[in-house]
Amino acid sequence: MPNTDQYWALPDGISEALPDEAERLEQLRRNLLDLFSAWGYRLVMPPLVEFMESLRTGHGSHLDVQTFKLTDQLSGRMMGVRADMTPQVARIDAHKLKGNQANRLCYIGSVLRTRSFHRDGSRSPLQVGAELFGHAGLDSDFEVISLLLETLTHCHVPNLVVDIGHVGIFRSLARAAGLNARQESTFYDMLERKSLPEIDEWLAQAKLPTDISGWLRQLPRLNGSQAVLDQAAELFAGAHPDIQEALAYLRTLVGRLAASFPDCRIHVDLAELSGYDYHTGIVYGIYTPGLGREVARGGRYDGIGEAFGRVRPATGFSTDLRTLAGFALPHMQASGNAAIFAPDTQDAALEQLIRDLRNQGKRVVRALDGQAATPAALGCNQQITQQNGQWAVVAV
Amino acid sequence: MPNTDQYWALPDGISEALPDEAERLEQLRRNLLDLFSAWGYRLVMPPLVEFMESLRTGHGSHLDVQTFKLTDQLSGRMMGVRADMTPQVARIDAHKLKGNQANRLCYIGSVLRTRSFHRDGSRSPLQVGAELFGHAGLDSDFEVISLLLETLTHCHVPNLVVDIGHVGIFRSLARAAGLNARQESTFYDMLERKSLPEIDEWLAQAKLPTDISGWLRQLPRLNGSQAVLDQAAELFAGAHPDIQEALAYLRTLVGRLAASFPDCRIHVDLAELSGYDYHTGIVYGIYTPGLGREVARGGRYDGIGEAFGRVRPATGFSTDLRTLAGFALPHMQASGNAAIFAPDTQDAALEQLIRDLRNQGKRVVRALDGQAATPAALGCNQQITQQNGQWAVVAV
Repeated sequence: MPNTDQYWALPDGISEALPDEAERLEQLRRNLLDLFSAWGYRLVMPPLVEFMESLRTGHGSHLDVQTFKLTDQLSGRMMGVRADMTPQVARIDAHKLKGNQANRLCYIGSVLRTRSFHRDGSRSPLQVGAELFGHAGLDSDFEVISLLLETLTHCHVPNLVVDIGHVGIFRSLARAAGLNARQESTFYDMLERKSLPEIDEWLAQAKLPTDISGWLRQLPRLNGSQAVLDQAAELFAGAHPDIQEALAYLRTLVGRLAASFPDCRIHVDLAELSGYDYHTGIVYGIYTPGLGREVARGGRYDGIGEAFGRVRPATGFSTDLRTLAGFALPHMQASGNAAIFAPDTQDAALEQLIRDLRNQGKRVVRALDGQAATPAALGCNQQITQQNGQWAVVAV
Repeated sequence: MPNTDQYWALPDGISEALPDEAERLEQLRRNLLDLFSAWGYRLVMPPLVEFMESLRTGHGSHLDVQTFKLTDQLSGRMMGVRADMTPQVARIDAHKLKGNQANRLCYIGSVLRTRSFHRDGSRSPLQVGAELFGHAGLDSDFEVISLLLETLTHCHVPNLVVDIGHVGIFRSLARAAGLNARQESTFYDMLERKSLPEIDEWLAQAKLPTDISGWLRQLPRLNGSQAVLDQAAELFAGAHPDIQEALAYLRTLVGRLAASFPDCRIHVDLAELSGYDYHTGIVYGIYTPGLGREVARGGRYDGIGEAFGRVRPATGFSTDLRTLAGFALPHMQASGNAAIFAPDTQDAALEQLIRDLRNQGKRVVRALDGQAATPAALGCNQQITQQNGQWAVVAV
């Protein structure tokens, strides 16, 4: 016989859940969707596959190479398995939902990626997120981040750190410096990696105006407490007013977050630019010590509606239910051994009792003819027996 | 501007759900998983993709052509997007769960198929089902069908018809007739289509022993009420005892079902052979008038465990949540306009009230700065206002 352990192994980064884990994941899923619902976020269910034209729209090419492609036999067109549900939800808001009012939407579902976004990470996260469309002001950014922090707190993620920036600052500096797309992308890469020596060397060769060169050199150094915002306001005093506006926006937002979530640490990072190709305002990642990557991520992406034929401001976050489960599940009860064993006897009163117990949400496991297993072996801690002609539930 | 309706259309047979539908689908999903749980069926979450070797095992080639293939960049091996979750759950029982006791498992998830199983049907059903492994007797078949009928009743599927057969009868006749695999498959095809003239012609040319030829000719005609079983017992009196055993099994099972579900019509059909390549005992489809295909389908497939390296009897059913939703959703309330509008005011007492309402499961939609929309336009039927210095919830 071949080594079946090897033979039935799942592909790297693909996982499944057995009952004890699956039931708690399902409970966590419900808790989060109920929390989103209580905040006014309504559920949508985007499809597992779409034509590539739809999946590509509004998001950068990074998503394209992450997407598994399929040829549709019916149309001959190329479809993709969703690698990220955010663009799907933006399409639904822009294209399927009418009216100009704010739409609060949430979603949960499996996505699939050709490679993991993170080393040793999943290629099929259970993505869960919330998006607020149709409002461009600070209240919507504050609401979405508040909901995310509530979510993470519910999941027992400890010692939350909000790493927050604003892509408008680098975007304005890049424009002032007259960087072309290739230069902007090179600089963005160096910022992402916080590679200070590379940045200094690149700037030394770029021959930009002295003030702009100095601002770009400082950008990756502008991270720390809220005091960084004052430092930046002073440093960028002579720069485009857009930058002062972005700093003021961040200052108000960070102030409100600090007041509402005194237990979270807020780390301002003006070189935090994740999703720079589609984000248009604030961007953030939430971290917890010991996890080598962010727990959740979000930001403002007002541009996306335009690609879908309808300009809509947008702000939202997404995370992975399995990542959250790593923190939440140890705090949750597995339902495994809370079950009642019922005999195989065919009797109307017994049937009625079983029906009543099940209607109360109790788990009743029925004996099967010829079955030798004890109630305990079937995971039951109680059983139904006949006592003085009456059926009764007793401990095993 | 291009015709975006055309541009953003989903592939044929692929659908999505907007809030009113999605929230009720989610509620239905919970109701069914809770029902399965109350019957002792524990949730598993099989992966969205697996290596083709795993997906193919134990099921016939019909599933192979239904499966979208993907090349795994990491291993260079071929993966498939699951087209049916039943073989995945059988793999989990055989390979991941220890012990020889009965395992009751259930599952729900999106599957993907290259073509719809049914004309005009979905290529990405939300498959939901329950399987009982490790018990070969009548009690497990009865339990699984009972759970299915409970499920369909919960979903308000009206006038249920159970179309039930037993693959052992045709299998025994085919063996007695000495049919080779190709002949058996040809005959099976004709039976599936209930093409009586073709069958008669085929038998006339096949030169089989007269008694066997007569039995095979009668097989597609043996369908109707339970009386068919007596008719068949008489007809097959001289055939292999396996057939009498299968008929007796069916008689007992049908009798128990008729007693427990007097509102269902039971239609015996000895040419009902769906999934003949992996089914080993009873097989059934559940129908309701007006739907041009079955609502659910199931049967016994004791063979599958062997392919996974561990012989395990198995019986189960599967259906599509979206098909069930067609019947259930009109009976369910959309949560859309049951929400409370809260002002944008920053006030500790207001924050506390909002938090309390949300903890009670109420949906509270917060005003956003500069927002002109009325509470009603935001789907709220109540709002929070200040009355005599107190925050209170009032009708809109």
